This record gives sequence, C-alpha cells and structure tokens, in this order.
Amino acid sequence: MITLNLELGKRSYPIYIGNGIINDSTLIQPHLVSNQVVIVTNDTIAPIYLQQVQDALANYNVHTVILPDGESHKNLATWSQIIDALLTYKATRHCTLIALGGGVIGDMTGFAAACYQRGIAFLQIPTTLLAQVDASVGGKTGINHPLGKNMIGAFYQPRCVIIDTNTLNTLPKREFIAGISEIIKYGLIRDQEFFAWLEASLPEILDKDPKIIARTIELSCQNKADIVAADEQETGQRALLNLGHTFGHAIETNLGYGKWLHGEAVAVGISMAAELSARLGWLTITERDRIIKLITQAELPTKLPSNLTKLSVQQFLKTMAVDKKVLDSGRLRLVLLTSIGKAIVTDQFDFLQLQRMLNDYSYVHV
Amino acid sequence: MITLNLELGKRSYPIYIGNGIINDSTLIQPHLVSNQVVIVTNDTIAPIYLQQVQDALANYNVHTVILPDGESHKNLATWSQIIDALLTYKATRHCTLIALGGGVIGDMTGFAAACYQRGIAFLQIPTTLLAQVDASVGGKTGINHPLGKNMIGAFYQPRCVIIDTNTLNTLPKREFIAGISEIIKYGLIRDQEFFAWLEASLPEILDKDPKIIARTIELSCQNKADIVAADEQETGQRALLNLGHTFGHAIETNLGYGKWLHGEAVAVGISMAAELSARLGWLTITERDRIIKLITQAELPTKLPSNLTKLSVQQFLKTMAVDKKVLDSGRLRLVLLTSIGKAIVTDQFDFLQLQRMLNDYSYVHV
Repeated sequence: MITLNLELGKRSYPIYIGNGIINDSTLIQPHLVSNQVVIVTNDTIAPIYLQQVQDALANYNVHTVILPDGESHKNLATWSQIIDALLTYKATRHCTLIALGGGVIGDMTGFAAACYQRGIAFLQIPTTLLAQVDASVGGKTGINHPLGKNMIGAFYQPRCVIIDTNTLNTLPKREFIAGISEIIKYGLIRDQEFFAWLEASLPEILDKDPKIIARTIELSCQNKADIVAADEQETGQRALLNLGHTFGHAIETNLGYGKWLHGEAVAVGISMAAELSARLGWLTITERDRIIKLITQAELPTKLPSNLTKLSVQQFLKTMAVDKKVLDSGRLRLVLLTSIGKAIVTDQFDFLQLQRMLNDYSYVHV
Repeated sequence: MITLNLELGKRSYPIYIGNGIINDSTLIQPHLVSNQVVIVTNDTIAPIYLQQVQDALANYNVHTVILPDGESHKNLATWSQIIDALLTYKATRHCTLIALGGGVIGDMTGFAAACYQRGIAFLQIPTTLLAQVDASVGGKTGINHPLGKNMIGAFYQPRCVIIDTNTLNTLPKREFIAGISEIIKYGLIRDQEFFAWLEASLPEILDKDPKIIARTIELSCQNKADIVAADEQETGQRALLNLGHTFGHAIETNLGYGKWLHGEAVAVGISMAAELSARLGWLTITERDRIIKLITQAELPTKLPSNLTKLSVQQFLKTMAVDKKVLDSGRLRLVLLTSIGKAIVTDQFDFLQLQRMLNDYSYVHV
C-alpha cells in the first residue's frame, strides 16, 4: 500500500492506494468521528462493495443511503435525499459520511457533509478510475444546475481517501478508459516525464496491470495533491486542472448530461486545447500529434460526437461562456499548452483562431 | 458612526453602526469585488429600502432578487430561487451578494453566497433589531428543513455588516421587541454590567432613543464579535450563544415556524433556562427574578403560548432532542446560568428537575 499526504495544515489528510483495502478497518476506523456512520453509494456499486465496507465497520452504528447511478442524478433533488436521510437517522454533528462510488457520489456526499449542520466529517472511497485520480482528491464538492455544471458546491476536504485498485476490475471498460483523460491531463499541465511514462506504459494500463495501475494512480494523485496544497481554492495554478474542461463542459451541456462520460468530453476538450495551442504557434505540431496519438491509443475520442458536428460555432462558444472558469473574466479564458508539461490560463489569444478551430474541428485528425 | 471589527485573520471584517448609513456608497463600495452586484431582499423591505441601496450603487451592474417575507420561506425551495437568479443573471465568481433584510434574508443569502460556484462574496445590511444584534454577525448561514431548524448551512463570513439604526423606525413593534431577547442574552451569558445597564436603559430602548439604541447594538455586536473571534465554528464557548434556544426551538417546532417570532420563543427559552438554573440551585432566586422581570418589562413572553400549555413533557423533550446542539452528546445538553453574566454548557444536571420545570412551567411567574 502507498500513502500520500495532501498538505493543508489542519485539514491535511492521507490518500491510501492499495489492492483489496476497501474493507480494511484499520484504515477506515481512525478517521471516524463517532460511532455513527452513514454510507452514501449508488445502486450499481451497492450490490458489489457495500457489504465489504460494512464489514469494516462491525461495531459501528451504520446507516446507508443508496442513490440512483449517473451524472443525470447529480442535482439538488437527489442531494436532498442525503440530507433527508441524515435527519431521519438523527445524524449528529459527530456523524461521519462515507462516499462509496464514483465522482458523482463523491461530489454529492462531500457537499452534503459540507452543509449538514454546517459541516460534518466525510471519507472518500472512490470506485472509478476518474474518481480515484481526480474527483476524490482536493475537496471540490457540488452538484449540477440545469443552467451549468457544478454551479452549487463547496470547497470541503475529506478526512481521508481510500483507493482500492481492485474496484477497477468491476468497472465497465468505457468508464475505465474515461478516467485516462484526467491522467493524461496531469502529464500535459505539469509533468512531462509522467506523460512520456504514460506513452510507454499505456498498453499495461489498458491491461490493468496492478503494479502499473497503482503507479499511475499514485503519480496522478501526487500531481493533484501538489496543486491543491499550493492553491486549495483555485485562485491560481489549480485552474490548470481545467485543461480541456471548458470545451468538455460545452460538449456535455449540448449533448445533455449523462450521454457522454465526463472523461470522454474532456478527452475531446484536451484535443481541442492542443489543436488551438498548436494553431497559435505555442505548441509544436510534433507535440500536438503526440497528444492526439496518446488519446487515440487510449481509445478515447478526439472529435465531437457526430450529432454535435453540426452545432454552430456561435452556439458552442455560448455554452463555453457559461462555464464558471470563463465567466470570471468576462472574456473567454482558457487553459492552453505551451509544451507537453507546461500550461497557462489566459484570455490573451487570437479569438479568430479559436473560431476557426471550432469550425474545422470535426474534420481534424480523422 | 461606530466601527467594530470582527477579528478572524484573513476573514476579518468591519461592522458599521450608524443612523442613515444604508445608502452610504463610501461604506458599501469598498467591499464589492467587481462591478456585478445582486441584492437579495424580501417583499416587505424592498418597497422601503431597496431604492436607497441601489442609489449607493449608481455605477454598478445591479440585479435584485425579491423573496417572500417570513421564516416559513427559509427553506430549500426559496433558497433555490436565489441560485436560479444568479445563474440567470450570469453571475460570475466575482459577483457580490447584498443581503438586505432580517435574519431570514441574511441566513439564506449567506448560504447562497457560500454555495454559488463554491463561494462568492456577500455583505449584510440587516434591517431588524434581531438581525442587527445577532444574525448578521458571525457567519452562521443556512436554511430550515421540515425536520429541524437551520439543519442545512455553512459557516461563511460576510465582507462587512452595515447596521443602519434608522431602519428600526419602520420595524413593527412586535419584531423590534423580539430582538431584545438576544440582547438580554449577551448580558446573561458574559456581561453582567451590560445586563445592569439594560435594566436601567430599557425604557429608552423601548422608546428607540437613537443614542441608547446605537449603544445597545454596539455592546451586543461587541459581545457577539468577541465570542465568534474566539470560537468561529462553535467547538467551545460559541455554544453559550444558544442560551434559551434549545427550549425556544422546541416551542417553534411545536407551534410551527412563523407563528411566533424567533425572539419570542427565545424569551420563553431564556426564562425556562433561568428557572431550571434556579431550581438546580445554580442561580439565586433574586437573579432569576431579575431576569424574568427584565424580560417581562421588555413586553416579551415568559410563558408558553396558551395552545402549547397542554403539550406533554414527553413531546416537549422529544422536540428538544432534535435540536442540533442537543444531538451531539446523545444526552440532553443545555446552556444554563450560574449567575447573571456567567453561563455553562452542560449535560450534567438532574433530569428530573428539567421534567418538573417543564411540567410546572406554564403556571410559573404569572
């Protein structure tokens, strides 16, 4: 087992990465505030892993909340179910929530923990690759609104993150692959060595080689932890983590939440960011091609979904402008690449190039 | 004008107290993050004060959200209206919210600011005595749930509090008087000099003598600010501020929100706490009588509302146990008095005395 530490002063916490640790009571129990525990999970994960987590809590007063699975349920109504359950169970301020599931469960449970009685403790047990390398680490919690993704939420850190790589064996292949987008992102924005290592290791990652998978998650979490420790509330470098996400959110918004996986939309978003960076002359063509190649080899999309290729550039830009990273400046602000391993957040780019890229995009890199 | 400062490190903020300062642009404008401002108020306050606040923001891009007035609207559905409006107005992370109204508006606006895009800035302009001396200071924000008061919320501090004592002239007498409960509370829990001063000054307070009112608000806010600075998240002494509130919340829950004003329920709660403290031998009979006398002279209730006098002790205790201050210990924990100016939080008291007091209460101090 590997233990990383996210350094945030009094709110520091460990990230445990190992195989078969989901029911390790010695990992979970020290982070529980009292005897009272509520596990929040979904109807896909519950039949597979809920019993194992319950087994690790034999002497505790454990309740469960089982929500419907999927991004389309990441909303105020489903979130309210968690709050209703906590009140029905008479959960005190010393109750601990456990988020058992993917990013949707983690985000909603964390936000419920942030708000219930003005804040109670919670733990993350992420069961998807995306949640393990990204969503579960760093304390971004929240829910979607019909008018925008993650528009309601809080910065609220868990007490620990328990990543059992064994859970990836029951993860559908499409979801596993979607998680690779965020992994590639870490290499692109700040770790060129990691990117090169990913190029070399991709076949073993896709084969779920346990050692390679553990190392991939470790390096991803380490990158994420470094960034969050330096800029918890995204006033600076944390914004780099949004590489590909403004494009990606526009794709998700236009498609409707839940049609594509988040990681799939981000893969196209990263491709678009790389393409625009290259057209602006900031990234070499060779680097752009390496990026597109790695995404393609990971079996991730690099083009818009076919039913969106007819979307007007105007409509695409409009939905990009709703993204909260963009709204800030009043101008369209994007994360762009200056090399593999180096990114910047900027609104200083030739807007015409963006329009042209969007116009051409569905025909690029066939 | 008086300026107090709530010391919370990077989150410190000023509390301005003055007459006719509601439209003082030099007070408001320095606390606005950008050109974008959304004023949240209610349909009682809007016709009287909204224009004045707007006048202080002549060169700003100002939107307004006008909610229905009253504690019965302090819920998730009404709160969502604020979020919906922010998204409709395309509010950015640099938008500033202004809460213009009583405690309900302040609590809901603060919680919307805490959650919108994971946190934006907000200002408090309280227009009721209760909000001026209590709710607007200290960063407790939130909404009610059918199963409990303030069960959903956040600790989230405003950028400043602007208290215009002139607004008290349009406040209905019943609401003005309800605010006096929390003022008396400060004297009881930590400031016996202030309590004695209130005994002497009550006639002028009830007459709304401007100088005496300003001084009353100043001393109340100073007491509140001292407590919050020492214990922002209520892990210790901040719990003393709940004197009378566990009893009071039980009264509000059994009556239904909005039937009695919060301050009225708290007045009875303080009377009950004083009575129980006296029966336990912790408070002298003389002190108890001084407390009951001051509350009575303030024209506040010291007895249960007549339709609740038939409520069983069992039912009363049950609703007390739902209060979040009580839930923590598993045992009933109360704020009780050991003298005027000194209170403790404890679950170490003779439970039989509590039952007897509740049983007798409606016949006491007629």
